[in-house]
Amino acid sequence: MGKITAAITGVQGYLPKDVMTNEDLAKIVDTSDEWITTRTGIKERRVMRDGASSDMAAEAVKALLEKKGVDPSEIELVIVATVTPDYPFPSTANVVCDKAGMKNAWGFDLNSACSGFIYALSTGAQFIETGRHKKVLVIGVDKMTSIIDYQDRTTCVIFGDGAGAVLLEPNDEGNGVLDYILRSDGSGRQYLIQPAGGSACPPSHQSVEERMHFVKQEGKQVFKFAVTNMADVSAEIMEKNNLSSDDVDWLVPHQANLRIIDATADRMGLTKEKVMINIQKYGNTTAATLPLCLWDYENQLKKGDNVILSAFGGGFTWGAVYLKWAY
Amino acid sequence: MGKITAAITGVQGYLPKDVMTNEDLAKIVDTSDEWITTRTGIKERRVMRDGASSDMAAEAVKALLEKKGVDPSEIELVIVATVTPDYPFPSTANVVCDKAGMKNAWGFDLNSACSGFIYALSTGAQFIETGRHKKVLVIGVDKMTSIIDYQDRTTCVIFGDGAGAVLLEPNDEGNGVLDYILRSDGSGRQYLIQPAGGSACPPSHQSVEERMHFVKQEGKQVFKFAVTNMADVSAEIMEKNNLSSDDVDWLVPHQANLRIIDATADRMGLTKEKVMINIQKYGNTTAATLPLCLWDYENQLKKGDNVILSAFGGGFTWGAVYLKWAY
Repeated sequence: MGKITAAITGVQGYLPKDVMTNEDLAKIVDTSDEWITTRTGIKERRVMRDGASSDMAAEAVKALLEKKGVDPSEIELVIVATVTPDYPFPSTANVVCDKAGMKNAWGFDLNSACSGFIYALSTGAQFIETGRHKKVLVIGVDKMTSIIDYQDRTTCVIFGDGAGAVLLEPNDEGNGVLDYILRSDGSGRQYLIQPAGGSACPPSHQSVEERMHFVKQEGKQVFKFAVTNMADVSAEIMEKNNLSSDDVDWLVPHQANLRIIDATADRMGLTKEKVMINIQKYGNTTAATLPLCLWDYENQLKKGDNVILSAFGGGFTWGAVYLKWAY
Repeated sequence: MGKITAAITGVQGYLPKDVMTNEDLAKIVDTSDEWITTRTGIKERRVMRDGASSDMAAEAVKALLEKKGVDPSEIELVIVATVTPDYPFPSTANVVCDKAGMKNAWGFDLNSACSGFIYALSTGAQFIETGRHKKVLVIGVDKMTSIIDYQDRTTCVIFGDGAGAVLLEPNDEGNGVLDYILRSDGSGRQYLIQPAGGSACPPSHQSVEERMHFVKQEGKQVFKFAVTNMADVSAEIMEKNNLSSDDVDWLVPHQANLRIIDATADRMGLTKEKVMINIQKYGNTTAATLPLCLWDYENQLKKGDNVILSAFGGGFTWGAVYLKWAY
């Protein structure tokens, strides 16, 4: 038996039913379908009217476990990547475990913004590789509408709500998570931030009044860093693993902006058919974009496919994960 | 060469200079030194007047790296356990990396309340065991005064501010993190919670008015669960690793309440001399209590000592880590 790797053995998404189109947004802020589409590639996004992040995550988990025939009590560890936890504490992982009946799991929330899923996937994989756990759930979920300012037309058009979950299990066939390159640069923190609500600026009437509990983004700066770093790290992980453009079967890019995705694919030498894209339907769901892509494309993935997941987001944080699809 | 384990090779704490005594609190709320001391064991706690959690964490990190002679650029991964991050996003880990010059590290915040440090320590250890990283920092930090309600005499007397950091490095002598048992039960979430500020209840004038951004605790319920679960899991990890009371050199218990600590030590059959206690000086610093204990007792720890870290907190989350001290 070879080295144990952590393989994704199932994936499931959950999206709220309510759709908000570009036309709907044009009624609220000064924007248009044409403006949003050409700059971001987004046509519509989902909006959760009631409930919190844990509700979306629990729905994804319940459907995933049912599909896989896994009893909730078999799950040992749950990692929830999110910037919109139900509460500052306790963790959304605890709430999801309770709502989905995962009585024997421990778990925690992992915060690294739009890179949350690749960070959490890499983290979850370690527990499988060491043999500590046999069944780990990695969830990406964000209710971005809870921190979006609908008076800010530069950000409110970008984000949407959603959840995605993957099951990690040991694999001895050489499939699963094989490598990662993860990076951060905290000097870029001011460009994409929720300024209030933490210990730097606790909630107050003033912070609410000044709309400081919403996402603030300097779009040009973020775009510049994202294009460069997401493309660079994706090319780097190919080189590090001796993968040519032909070797790569799928790029699973964070769905923040179609132009960033295109630049990354170009840099990797990939044709459009190899790039998972669902930004037009869901917008940027932050930690949920990557598992939602895997879910949308699950039927097209084949055992042994070389898959590269790539992301860039607030922090700044960015990176790429190389895995071989296991089923 | 045997199995690689993750050893703590250095520890450092940071505490704000300002001391708030029980007498100081008695001037603000209806309480007394006698009431606080008999119920909790706390005499005073530290209070950070300016700055955020990252400032305390960065001070601990800088002192730790200087003490160890490790250049900040050598650190590969930083895990920050906290319930009081600087911002909802980006992560405090990113900010600490920037402030302490850890240019080559990636990192994330891990939220699991008072169990944060044992969860983060166990997580960091996986990255060492798999050989992915050689130098990992695990930080516990909380600026609890940023979420304490000084009108609530049942909670404001308990908590304090502080930070602690440990360096994890590979060990092939059999020392380091050897086992953990980690648990959670989200059905207990309502007993110890910050109700507002997440996606379940975003900040609003009403949530500020109703003081919902502060720690809410049903003390009796939490005490009951904490006493039972922290003692049980500590005894369980001894049994699982065939450790008698004589074998255990140190218990490092979460510093929430002296009576919970005593009950845990009793259950493990340990005499008082084997129990690290600093609650009288710092109160409950949430994710920082355990590394602050290790720091206070660093000079008394000997290479090969059997150490059990144990915690219980919001979620509910709880667990125990068994390690052999490496220096």
